[in-house]
Amino acid sequence: MPRPSVRDRLLAAGLETLRTQGFNGCGVQDITAAAGVPKGSFYNHFDSKEALGAAVVDQYMRVSDERLAPLQDTSLTPLRRLRVYFAAQVDMLVETKFECGCLLANFAAELADHSPLIRERVAASFAAWARRIEDVLREAQAAGEVAGDVSPDMLATFMLGAWEGAVLRARVEKARAPLDGFLWLAFDRSLSQGTPACTR
Amino acid sequence: MPRPSVRDRLLAAGLETLRTQGFNGCGVQDITAAAGVPKGSFYNHFDSKEALGAAVVDQYMRVSDERLAPLQDTSLTPLRRLRVYFAAQVDMLVETKFECGCLLANFAAELADHSPLIRERVAASFAAWARRIEDVLREAQAAGEVAGDVSPDMLATFMLGAWEGAVLRARVEKARAPLDGFLWLAFDRSLSQGTPACTR
Repeated sequence: MPRPSVRDRLLAAGLETLRTQGFNGCGVQDITAAAGVPKGSFYNHFDSKEALGAAVVDQYMRVSDERLAPLQDTSLTPLRRLRVYFAAQVDMLVETKFECGCLLANFAAELADHSPLIRERVAASFAAWARRIEDVLREAQAAGEVAGDVSPDMLATFMLGAWEGAVLRARVEKARAPLDGFLWLAFDRSLSQGTPACTR
Repeated sequence: MPRPSVRDRLLAAGLETLRTQGFNGCGVQDITAAAGVPKGSFYNHFDSKEALGAAVVDQYMRVSDERLAPLQDTSLTPLRRLRVYFAAQVDMLVETKFECGCLLANFAAELADHSPLIRERVAASFAAWARRIEDVLREAQAAGEVAGDVSPDMLATFMLGAWEGAVLRARVEKARAPLDGFLWLAFDRSLSQGTPACTR
């Protein structure tokens, strides 16, 4: 295997450092130190920490992509696939003691007002993620698992928002209850059993 | 009216500065400058920026408290009260061009792993807010507006999470659609009309 390029090492270290420290919680030097490259080499590859931050959003989406595999598992019903996918994310968050959370949500909270470059990259990544969920919801509608008269786009956005909010709450509570509540209300109760969460 | 004390000015300026810049996006000097007090006076009132951050969480809850007034408006049904409350927050976010968002979510994202002091304060504030919503949901259950066999605690947590996630998404999209989707799926469709969002 070829040795990773300096750029690849900066990207990997940037992802790790920005996820754990936050964008404003670290400097370029923390990232070059984590990458094991001279500080001066940073600007050969990225114009600014902001430019690295934007590239890190894409890198995060690439490394997260494999986690979406359950959504392709056609041995399960569409809705079951979604539940398996989110339940695996819950397990991962519990294993990592709720640390770091979701880079998209963290950058949204920290940078939406300060970096149009990163804000747009985060928006595009959220939209791509929502589309993956929307596709499965559309299948679930075709299979009769989900009401057919709700926009799957709107439902995917709502579901992703409910997930991100549950992750934030779990992180401050250091407890899985908000995540289990999400799974139960989004899937076991509302979606799967025909007995909605909030309706008589 | 008496002149606000230095501590009160630091609290007000701290809330404004930490909300707009993020915790790690500003320093003590930015806060003392915004408060119009000498930098040296800061440590007469707070041990650290972290201590001010924790006090700012409480200050945020105090100034946000009046927004909860619609939840007391018994001329409306319990569920209607909740919708009016959240719809007013949507209007405010639209007016302010989705800037700043919610301090609790922002501190959760930025500081959950770094400041136990602020994390616990944010957790307590989320819990207090959720209890206010839970109380109205319990009334809605008693009034037959919401299914009686779902824990109002879990439902309030889910609703607050869906709200926070929608706010984050609206902030990166610079668009109200995720917030309108929240209102529609949480209230118009799921809760009020007896035709749930996600169920046949």
